[in-house]
Amino acid sequence: MSSNSFGQLFRVTTWGESHGAAIGCVIDGVPPLIPISEPEIQEYLDKRRPGQSRFTTQRREPDAVRIVSGVFEGVTTGTPISLIIDNVDQRSKDYSEIKDKFRPGHADYTYWKKYGIRDYRGGGRSSARETAMRVAAGAVARKVLGDAVSIRGALVQVGDSAVDRSKWDWDEVPRNPFWCPDADTASGWEKLLDKVRKAGSSTGAVIEVTASGVQAGLGAPVYGKLDADIAAAMMSINAVKGIEIGAGFAAAGLSGEDNADEMRIDNSGNVRFLSNAAGGVLGGISTGQDIVIRFAVKPTSSILAPRKTVTTDGRETEISTKGRHDPCVGIRAVPVGEAMLACVLADHLLRHRAQCG
Amino acid sequence: MSSNSFGQLFRVTTWGESHGAAIGCVIDGVPPLIPISEPEIQEYLDKRRPGQSRFTTQRREPDAVRIVSGVFEGVTTGTPISLIIDNVDQRSKDYSEIKDKFRPGHADYTYWKKYGIRDYRGGGRSSARETAMRVAAGAVARKVLGDAVSIRGALVQVGDSAVDRSKWDWDEVPRNPFWCPDADTASGWEKLLDKVRKAGSSTGAVIEVTASGVQAGLGAPVYGKLDADIAAAMMSINAVKGIEIGAGFAAAGLSGEDNADEMRIDNSGNVRFLSNAAGGVLGGISTGQDIVIRFAVKPTSSILAPRKTVTTDGRETEISTKGRHDPCVGIRAVPVGEAMLACVLADHLLRHRAQCG
Amino acid sequence: MSSNSFGQLFRVTTWGESHGAAIGCVIDGVPPLIPISEPEIQEYLDKRRPGQSRFTTQRREPDAVRIVSGVFEGVTTGTPISLIIDNVDQRSKDYSEIKDKFRPGHADYTYWKKYGIRDYRGGGRSSARETAMRVAAGAVARKVLGDAVSIRGALVQVGDSAVDRSKWDWDEVPRNPFWCPDADTASGWEKLLDKVRKAGSSTGAVIEVTASGVQAGLGAPVYGKLDADIAAAMMSINAVKGIEIGAGFAAAGLSGEDNADEMRIDNSGNVRFLSNAAGGVLGGISTGQDIVIRFAVKPTSSILAPRKTVTTDGRETEISTKGRHDPCVGIRAVPVGEAMLACVLADHLLRHRAQCG
Amino acid sequence: MSSNSFGQLFRVTTWGESHGAAIGCVIDGVPPLIPISEPEIQEYLDKRRPGQSRFTTQRREPDAVRIVSGVFEGVTTGTPISLIIDNVDQRSKDYSEIKDKFRPGHADYTYWKKYGIRDYRGGGRSSARETAMRVAAGAVARKVLGDAVSIRGALVQVGDSAVDRSKWDWDEVPRNPFWCPDADTASGWEKLLDKVRKAGSSTGAVIEVTASGVQAGLGAPVYGKLDADIAAAMMSINAVKGIEIGAGFAAAGLSGEDNADEMRIDNSGNVRFLSNAAGGVLGGISTGQDIVIRFAVKPTSSILAPRKTVTTDGRETEISTKGRHDPCVGIRAVPVGEAMLACVLADHLLRHRAQCG
Repeated sequence: MSSNSFGQLFRVTTWGESHGAAIGCVIDGVPPLIPISEPEIQEYLDKRRPGQSRFTTQRREPDAVRIVSGVFEGVTTGTPISLIIDNVDQRSKDYSEIKDKFRPGHADYTYWKKYGIRDYRGGGRSSARETAMRVAAGAVARKVLGDAVSIRGALVQVGDSAVDRSKWDWDEVPRNPFWCPDADTASGWEKLLDKVRKAGSSTGAVIEVTASGVQAGLGAPVYGKLDADIAAAMMSINAVKGIEIGAGFAAAGLSGEDNADEMRIDNSGNVRFLSNAAGGVLGGISTGQDIVIRFAVKPTSSILAPRKTVTTDGRETEISTKGRHDPCVGIRAVPVGEAMLACVLADHLLRHRAQCG
Repeated sequence: MSSNSFGQLFRVTTWGESHGAAIGCVIDGVPPLIPISEPEIQEYLDKRRPGQSRFTTQRREPDAVRIVSGVFEGVTTGTPISLIIDNVDQRSKDYSEIKDKFRPGHADYTYWKKYGIRDYRGGGRSSARETAMRVAAGAVARKVLGDAVSIRGALVQVGDSAVDRSKWDWDEVPRNPFWCPDADTASGWEKLLDKVRKAGSSTGAVIEVTASGVQAGLGAPVYGKLDADIAAAMMSINAVKGIEIGAGFAAAGLSGEDNADEMRIDNSGNVRFLSNAAGGVLGGISTGQDIVIRFAVKPTSSILAPRKTVTTDGRETEISTKGRHDPCVGIRAVPVGEAMLACVLADHLLRHRAQCG
Repeated sequence: MSSNSFGQLFRVTTWGESHGAAIGCVIDGVPPLIPISEPEIQEYLDKRRPGQSRFTTQRREPDAVRIVSGVFEGVTTGTPISLIIDNVDQRSKDYSEIKDKFRPGHADYTYWKKYGIRDYRGGGRSSARETAMRVAAGAVARKVLGDAVSIRGALVQVGDSAVDRSKWDWDEVPRNPFWCPDADTASGWEKLLDKVRKAGSSTGAVIEVTASGVQAGLGAPVYGKLDADIAAAMMSINAVKGIEIGAGFAAAGLSGEDNADEMRIDNSGNVRFLSNAAGGVLGGISTGQDIVIRFAVKPTSSILAPRKTVTTDGRETEISTKGRHDPCVGIRAVPVGEAMLACVLADHLLRHRAQCG
Repeated sequence: MSSNSFGQLFRVTTWGESHGAAIGCVIDGVPPLIPISEPEIQEYLDKRRPGQSRFTTQRREPDAVRIVSGVFEGVTTGTPISLIIDNVDQRSKDYSEIKDKFRPGHADYTYWKKYGIRDYRGGGRSSARETAMRVAAGAVARKVLGDAVSIRGALVQVGDSAVDRSKWDWDEVPRNPFWCPDADTASGWEKLLDKVRKAGSSTGAVIEVTASGVQAGLGAPVYGKLDADIAAAMMSINAVKGIEIGAGFAAAGLSGEDNADEMRIDNSGNVRFLSNAAGGVLGGISTGQDIVIRFAVKPTSSILAPRKTVTTDGRETEISTKGRHDPCVGIRAVPVGEAMLACVLADHLLRHRAQCG
């Protein structure tokens, strides 16, 4: 058991605080002889890297990853892969404002209640900086899954503004700073988030991630359900408050007739589903259809407007967070959500192979 | 690792198929010297038991639980608690209809794809019958948590009909067959579900579960987040398609100002929150406020209307499910959701004690 | 984590006390479609069953095993296999002698110190009765390993009398009541143990277990070493005080030249070792040679001669154990050791398949 | 599950190869607010460091440890502690001799059979270099255990020469290059090992480790036995072939009378044992007496004398290992054994606290 590890057979352990010397992860259980290089991991880290537009935090972290073990002559050896990213933008800063005050809606308070101590510099272990290692691990997970599996994410809602699904275009996703699949909605978000940003405020969002090419049979009864592990994976991402699969919460309003994904045989003799209310998972096991999940991210608690709070020594006060923060943390959550889905699928691929050969 | 186990230190392993001789669970890690008796567990099983109204399946399972180990002279000994329920209503039945056909929206197909075999009698291991053991384990978990923690669930939406939260009355919950906290809505559901039932159809639902009295500090960074484990727990329940905590998916539409639960000091010198958008968890650790979660349940796939499907040998056909089924499986999911929350909290109580004394 | 579970992917959880209604185990992770029946498990239980000669306890436990889940139409389904043995020889007995006194060299004292309670009837959970479920699980493990792997155990030392290895004959093992591979030594043990038995005393023993036909490559670095898991498995058996593999403790006295198992190529082009000081494991991974382990069992603490002890309320006293006990618990440890080795190998077979396909 | 992790609640994950850029470990589950500094860890690493006498390898590794996360303002924060040691003595070397040949008695062959690849530089992951991180983790474990627990190791046998226990003097241990508790025997070992070293040969050894001050009650039934975890811990150390506790293998030759550690009440009203054949553990749970274990280490396979071996492409050849190696790897195994015992005890301390408060 480890609270800082994720997965059973494709097992990722992360470490590091936002303002320590470095952050890192150890990935155990990776099959041998898989080609993997730093640039292949860096590609995904670059998608998550802050400061790429005015809509994400202006911290300058190059997030350059180093493979320190587990890869020899360009391929995995089956031994633990250690990945390390040095923290370079730890600018000297005055933390006196937050050192003794709790930010409402932040983990400040709960860490302090649990441990009696917290690393107040930049959130310490609770910082979203930790998600960089998830993205790095996700890049390795994709290699384990192979080219047949494709995992793509998109931002589908910012504040109250949701994408128009009839205009969904995956090619549009990398063209705008929001990973938005609908160009028109992206324009609207630009205006919306400029307003939020200038006000020193923040807003929530919804992310959708899809995995295509996943074989039927991954996942397991009863507590090892693929969607149970996906739910934990997504809920473990900073700021996530909800997760759904397929029809999700809308399934509550469906009839049994509408929810049943009818089945036919296609020309190749394979099973074909006529719909995907299940989101690719039935009874916790993949159906072979696309796995489609969504998760909701709350607005960051680091805002300019003063909020009522208390101090570590029990006095009432107010707090206002200045500095470099994301008006919508949901944007950078897109590559993180993709990475977590990749990790869960890689884990279940190995688990399935163990039991079912 | 075990796909049929749940929890780390309060660890529950369930076994059994719906039509085998019995189902059971083994609970390991329970602290010693806790008084526990069969009637105390039975009380919760009786809440879940089918056939108590016309709105749940008419199977007649007394679900009488036996404590077979781990309790001596009325108290726990610290050794594994084995609980067994004999299956008594396994009426001889003709399974030829479903033996070779897959029910759309059911785990039939995925079990068969994964294992190359499935126990087609009543769903086998994928049957909701397994949830009886969750409820039994939950009763033990409540004992571990003690009287200070109170866990209560309610049905808050059936089909498109949600409760009126201004009329919420916990006392009303056990008075109607739906665990509905609002008497007026309950009346409406009665009509709605009678219609669904007579049509041989089914409908989805949303369940809300609240835990009060949970101390601040339970849960852990980063992958051991309390809400990550709750999400997995709820998503592992049959038919669940979504899970949210606190503001949940609505958090996407909030501003940072609205989402921040401001803090004050009460007359006793304790921290008091002015709202609970967090649902009692920040950074994966409990705040001391009520933990409030919701999950969505899809309509059962066992419906009368014929649906297009295929056979195990690859032919197209139709299927229509006759027999004793729940028009709204969400009703019986209420005690199951309570039990899972109890199990997660008991587990994290022990985990917290291990690290933080 | 569970203190009553063993193995990672082939995962066995046992439950039950010696004087409860039943004992049982749940085996999770078993691959599907493996034929298994109650008689195939019973065969191994019968080898361990007490009362088969005057050299083991005279309790009469038929130890009839029932498969309660996880097997359908004669084959495994991939879901948890629940095995149960009812306790039938719980004769009404006066426990007042041991209820308040600790048996020196017995777990009585430590259970009481740990939990503040102990089931004093027959040892409760600390009873060797638990090993029946290990044997049952081992029978399933053998099925997972398949016919190519053969696991055989023998008693190689009783008290100070060790077998003559030059006379080793596996066929002799089932012909005497000691699982002794050397008929002459067996005769000597008969006299020795008759003397011990009549004196109400007990003696220790050494068991050797060999697994043939194990493929090279099972086991893993660094903490997942095959021999580390074997060591834990054997040491977890009641009364075991030492475990060694290959040359074992004698390796301390060897030179590097003598210890190195030299390698040649045989006529089929396969690697052939000229010796087996390694006992079939190098660097924690199987070499393909026979895996050869030994473990030492202490004499049972249940003896007639009065020993100085104390009571639960802190008074000095003496204790003498009357009743049905084994003069040499090592005899019945032979099938238990075999079973544990089978379980470890089955687990590592699945683990290897997961990572290395 | 992770093959490179050890412990359940005090959980150590190590990574790194002998000839990569660095080695490291992540320790999760450490309680908060424990003071810990790099010098306190370095102290133990210095005991294991090679090149301190002519009896250990002449590699020059300063083994300077850095604490990279989990410690803030001098105390633990409850988050994962990342420790890193840079590899500095990776002198350019010609590996062509061992690149394609297997060293008899070495993990070369089994890694290659398992993974189809091996990092042949200095043993890669199978190198004893990994044990540096065990020692570092052990230093942290000692901090968790606190000052009341004292863990000390000694070398008790080299080749066929065992210490004279009547001359045992703990103060002598750090005074000779062997951690030998008996000065006379140490003198003899000096001559013996000079001879072994000059011959380019190697010899095995036996190490004894004792933990004093361990409270009664640590450990758990049945598979969570303290001695089962100790056995796995020791057997996971490179080159270990056997492990015993208390009377160990000698218990086989004892009578029940001699093996029973009789109990009395001391002047303070506490239980006092008259002997310690149990080695401090009964039924897998600590008694409060000293925990006393021994393990046997085989001679290293890196020797000068040519041995018959085969190549990766299946040809017969010979191999002779030149260069800097330990004539008796058992010497440096002493601090490693101490560290592993500390880790197991720290883990079980947390596990005990979780269940029994």
